[in-house]
Amino acid sequence: MSKPSLVAGTRDFSPADVARRRYIFDTITRIYAQFGYLPIETPTLEKMSTLTGKYGNEGEQLIYKVLNSGDFLSKIKPEQLTPDNSNNLSPLIAEKGLRYDLTVPFARYVVMNQNDLAFPFKRYQIQPVWRAERNQAGRYREFYQCDADAIGSDSLLYEAEILQMLDQVFNLLKLKVIIRLNNRKILDGLCQLAGAPDLFAQIVATIDKADKIGQEAVLIELKNMGLSEQGLTAIQEIVFDKKYNLSELKAIFETANVEIGKKGVDELNAVLAFLRGYNFSNSLELDFSLARGLSYYTGAIMEVVVDTSIDNQKSIKMGSISGGGRYDNLTAVFGLPNMSGVGVSFGADRIFDVLLQLNLFPDSCLQTVKALLVNFDEATLQAAFELAGKLRAQNIAIDIYPKPAKLKKQLEYAQKRNLPFVVICEAKEGVINYQLKNMQTGTQESINLENLIAALS
Amino acid sequence: MSKPSLVAGTRDFSPADVARRRYIFDTITRIYAQFGYLPIETPTLEKMSTLTGKYGNEGEQLIYKVLNSGDFLSKIKPEQLTPDNSNNLSPLIAEKGLRYDLTVPFARYVVMNQNDLAFPFKRYQIQPVWRAERNQAGRYREFYQCDADAIGSDSLLYEAEILQMLDQVFNLLKLKVIIRLNNRKILDGLCQLAGAPDLFAQIVATIDKADKIGQEAVLIELKNMGLSEQGLTAIQEIVFDKKYNLSELKAIFETANVEIGKKGVDELNAVLAFLRGYNFSNSLELDFSLARGLSYYTGAIMEVVVDTSIDNQKSIKMGSISGGGRYDNLTAVFGLPNMSGVGVSFGADRIFDVLLQLNLFPDSCLQTVKALLVNFDEATLQAAFELAGKLRAQNIAIDIYPKPAKLKKQLEYAQKRNLPFVVICEAKEGVINYQLKNMQTGTQESINLENLIAALS
Repeated sequence: MSKPSLVAGTRDFSPADVARRRYIFDTITRIYAQFGYLPIETPTLEKMSTLTGKYGNEGEQLIYKVLNSGDFLSKIKPEQLTPDNSNNLSPLIAEKGLRYDLTVPFARYVVMNQNDLAFPFKRYQIQPVWRAERNQAGRYREFYQCDADAIGSDSLLYEAEILQMLDQVFNLLKLKVIIRLNNRKILDGLCQLAGAPDLFAQIVATIDKADKIGQEAVLIELKNMGLSEQGLTAIQEIVFDKKYNLSELKAIFETANVEIGKKGVDELNAVLAFLRGYNFSNSLELDFSLARGLSYYTGAIMEVVVDTSIDNQKSIKMGSISGGGRYDNLTAVFGLPNMSGVGVSFGADRIFDVLLQLNLFPDSCLQTVKALLVNFDEATLQAAFELAGKLRAQNIAIDIYPKPAKLKKQLEYAQKRNLPFVVICEAKEGVINYQLKNMQTGTQESINLENLIAALS
Repeated sequence: MSKPSLVAGTRDFSPADVARRRYIFDTITRIYAQFGYLPIETPTLEKMSTLTGKYGNEGEQLIYKVLNSGDFLSKIKPEQLTPDNSNNLSPLIAEKGLRYDLTVPFARYVVMNQNDLAFPFKRYQIQPVWRAERNQAGRYREFYQCDADAIGSDSLLYEAEILQMLDQVFNLLKLKVIIRLNNRKILDGLCQLAGAPDLFAQIVATIDKADKIGQEAVLIELKNMGLSEQGLTAIQEIVFDKKYNLSELKAIFETANVEIGKKGVDELNAVLAFLRGYNFSNSLELDFSLARGLSYYTGAIMEVVVDTSIDNQKSIKMGSISGGGRYDNLTAVFGLPNMSGVGVSFGADRIFDVLLQLNLFPDSCLQTVKALLVNFDEATLQAAFELAGKLRAQNIAIDIYPKPAKLKKQLEYAQKRNLPFVVICEAKEGVINYQLKNMQTGTQESINLENLIAALS
């Protein structure tokens, strides 16, 4: 009999981990719900025809494929069965795959239910996804995504709401963050200003690297792409030096007749106008370099990072912990064009790691069982059973040591389980007496039921 | 572009379905937590070596196998690649599988974490499992299991607690049920009484069919197995006629010197002794025919069915909706012997169908968004945005119509979404005025913020 083990890149979650994760998920859920987002859930298994062609070549290699049930080779021709034919054989013997993200299933859901949904449709979805990533520390093959999207309206109200949701979730989690905001149309405008609209992808990818390679190296790379001195100066001043506020930037685009850049500024202004009466708990920063890996965004682009200027958060080394933005045509790939949407996603695993490192999980989320009832014989075990019923009826989580045993053994069990209290049930001259023992302070007092309920509630 | 569709046997869950399912899961979770059970979660992907040999031949065929990533054929010899070789090829090209139940992963978890866990260890686990069942109506290939197990103690206290948990969950769900209780040792004793201990599996499987084929047919089958007249009479009187109470049954076993039957009665008596002061909301019935398909139970066997003697529940046609029992050696298969445990499992999908049919889901679980804020121009949209912030801060779920539009259009949107209220934001001589409209009664009244918060809370 071999020792059992886990699939590499997957994890068991202990009770403490489940409690911590729930604290994060519940916080996100609470804010999503307050903002009128409704939950949906989609299946783990999707047809490969739904998943194929959606994630690029690299992504597609990472989709877990599920072997057809039964005699999966029966319809395969012998000439297809050669050791060098994995790629061609796979679609024939594995027609189902595991959910790779929540976006494609959401698009499929919207298309399949378009006649029943009221648009704009605001949905949130907190479910695991699977990716056959190369095995390395801190990279998981099964992890949760926590997405919310509003689809079927181009109203910028939703961008403003998403910024509020980001702010409020991290405020509840007591983590100070910087919320970065950009607009894809400003990036388009920058490339036009630089006289190189055709080089959009390369320019933006290069600017996006500034964090890693430094601004000077970025400017050299851009120069090597053939950008004019004037273009380089514009990018340096606007993106890196942050020399201009939004009205000045708008004037620059106007002077240069860069319509799309102007539109990007207008959209940002409209989002900020909604928020003028709102007090952010975190920093909101305009960042004209923000591109989020050139994903499918067409308007707003948002990203959250830990604010490492705060004293107790300096130690955190972590990339973005949430992000989102406006996209068009998410559902076009399934035959429903012209649906504009905007979405946000919280990186639960990274948030988990940060909160753990900063010791920000409240103790209360870990202390689920309030007390162990200790007993010494049949009579006190029966009394414990009945007392547990009364305490549980008050929604207090209670455990009973399941058999009479020595006090020491039962206290050790409570200690190993990190329980805050034990209640010692003793029989004295036929009367049951309760002692409440605080496991942290060690104090112990005789107590009646009423006070016991109050102490444990 | 083909129309997207779901994998057969899988489901999307709409917001209303998610809300209803959460109502069930939350109720079960609440009771599990009150009784001191702690949550764990295990990965969706398990090694096939963990899953193989645990579910019998039939079950094993139903495990979803996940194709190895990358060039999965590269190490396969050409002679293994023949169309008739599915069964032999599968373990070579698919070394991972999807979770088939929660019991085997739990056993694996206990074995892998045995040095860190405090025993007895009480865990609950609410996660989906996957089975490649034949496609048929009402049978799902992805469905949730809701298990709780106490492992590492043979105390019968846990059986008593499980009966309480079953009673309390269904009491909270407002469904009247019958909780059936038996003990495997009584079934063993019955076979000894009938002089045929070797025929245990056949006898019990036959008795288990009484619901379907009738008692007479069962007795004929048993006679054909070679049971004596005396044995048949014993089974008829004890199992079908329920002629004896527990003390009489114990006396019968004593007279016949059937030690194991006596032990079964003693165990049942001990469980019932714990419960003598507990008022069941549902019926608890001893049922000496209960075997639950001869699973691995060694002591108590429990099963819950809908009580169709209740007037408004007569229409329900449904098998067991929950079950459980005591087992030994769950973890032996992974190298940890002598761990006795007892578990319970709620059949969430069946409970869902029953509650839906009986209209037992509370309206409150569906009304998540309380009001839509209606607006007519930039000023009232801005006012709505700010009002939403104040209401959401009170944890009231609020939605805003995202753009100024005609009242009719916005009311239709609220109606289609089944929202209980709309708040009409109007500007009158520069002052914003709020009207609260009850969408059910149609009444509408001018209201200030304070009263609005009270009305929507």
